[in-house]
Amino acid sequence: MPGSVDELIDLLDLEPIEANLFRGQQPDTLLQRVFGGQVLAQAIMAAIRTVSDAYLVHSLHSYFLRPGDTSVPIVYDVDSLRDGRSFATRRVTARQHGRPIFFMTANFQIPEDGVEHADPMPQVMAPEECPDVIRAAPAAQLEEWRREWAAVDMRRAGSTVHAPGAAHVGRSQWWIKLDGELPDSAEIQTAAFTYATDMTLLPAVLVPHGLNLMSPGVQSASLDHTIWFHRPIRADQWWLYDQATPSAQGARGLALARVFQDGKLCATVAQEGLVRVSR
Amino acid sequence: MPGSVDELIDLLDLEPIEANLFRGQQPDTLLQRVFGGQVLAQAIMAAIRTVSDAYLVHSLHSYFLRPGDTSVPIVYDVDSLRDGRSFATRRVTARQHGRPIFFMTANFQIPEDGVEHADPMPQVMAPEECPDVIRAAPAAQLEEWRREWAAVDMRRAGSTVHAPGAAHVGRSQWWIKLDGELPDSAEIQTAAFTYATDMTLLPAVLVPHGLNLMSPGVQSASLDHTIWFHRPIRADQWWLYDQATPSAQGARGLALARVFQDGKLCATVAQEGLVRVSR
Repeated sequence: MPGSVDELIDLLDLEPIEANLFRGQQPDTLLQRVFGGQVLAQAIMAAIRTVSDAYLVHSLHSYFLRPGDTSVPIVYDVDSLRDGRSFATRRVTARQHGRPIFFMTANFQIPEDGVEHADPMPQVMAPEECPDVIRAAPAAQLEEWRREWAAVDMRRAGSTVHAPGAAHVGRSQWWIKLDGELPDSAEIQTAAFTYATDMTLLPAVLVPHGLNLMSPGVQSASLDHTIWFHRPIRADQWWLYDQATPSAQGARGLALARVFQDGKLCATVAQEGLVRVSR
Repeated sequence: MPGSVDELIDLLDLEPIEANLFRGQQPDTLLQRVFGGQVLAQAIMAAIRTVSDAYLVHSLHSYFLRPGDTSVPIVYDVDSLRDGRSFATRRVTARQHGRPIFFMTANFQIPEDGVEHADPMPQVMAPEECPDVIRAAPAAQLEEWRREWAAVDMRRAGSTVHAPGAAHVGRSQWWIKLDGELPDSAEIQTAAFTYATDMTLLPAVLVPHGLNLMSPGVQSASLDHTIWFHRPIRADQWWLYDQATPSAQGARGLALARVFQDGKLCATVAQEGLVRVSR
């Protein structure tokens, strides 16, 4: 996985094969399966590259179908479903070994004005004051982090299990940013943000059970991933990932998250995941 | 539109054309455009009919691409994307006049056990105590309701604009059920529930602005629709539709909703809509 922002930018630089057909390279990694955020980020790059600059992406919905193979490139095949007066729609199929591993539909809009409201940002400590759980981790974990995940920086802003009157049964909050400056390119900012939204989200489902992804007996996998982009965001400046989990059942759990930057609500993210716990 | 539960059941009875290809009839209606809930319900019926009974639907993600024409049937073309050991995935394209009007991907799972948690149900008045805003409406509106919407019954449980400490900036709550008994069929219960989730949801976006869909100058259309099914629900018994709107901007608004029945969280629903207000 990209150990730096530069490696992430390389990963987003898809090779055009044909109109609406792209090939995404694999990073060096010891991971067995392709990280979902990589497929999400490469897929949204592929979609953006087939849409006129006049439109901006406002939402994406995706399903993970099969584990990705880290040893071969991923091909992204983009279907132009609609180029309308206000909206454009793209569907992206990610393929390996002749089979789809992932589907995304993304919707784009020509910017226009409208009524405006947004949830207020919850009060949390500033990122500088929050625990740096990454760098406080045991050496082996820290080494893995530097090798696989260090394109992203994060701070733990807190987690809570349901308190009376709280909206959701479990909650988890992180400050996240790309760990280095990104170009002033809307597509790279969007794709890098999309990449990072797949980190820390599914574990929110485990918060009410006092577990995390590394707890013995926990097996997890993303099933879907959705982003609604409300307002522009800089992926390389701190944003608050305010996650909640309304439900887990049937070996699945749902995480919903709000993304705030500079006090503004910039995106809403949803992910359902398979969560098997053998105890 | 179906003016009764029996008409809705007829609407869900798709005509099989070929393997994975179905035709859905149109109801009598004076509406100009096909109601989104009809397409959602017919599409999920089509998907369910191509999947073994061993799997239950656990989520659907969909995009509305073009207004549907109420004068001709809708053809539903189902792609079998995956039939795995635990999960099955279907993609449904709804077509009219040779063009896609709607896309849905739905995921199915063979039931299994897992960790369990759920948001608690918010306190609201019982449906019998809530205002029957439908039957209190002016005669012309009531007549339209009886002709187009009377397969569903609903009671207004309340709406609030942001109060300090509230999770979301606007909130709207309805009790909803199908207005008559449905067969004990998981697919009909699921499809009828899906039908009704497209009612009252997008208007939640207007709550913070003191507007509703009938306010002068308001133009709206569903852009996407997502349901995560957590636990079985009976569409023909009261369920609480607890809606919140985190954001509106750029002529779009997002509504997120939780569905409770008998005190249990049964589903989470999300819809983004186009909301244009000319004042």
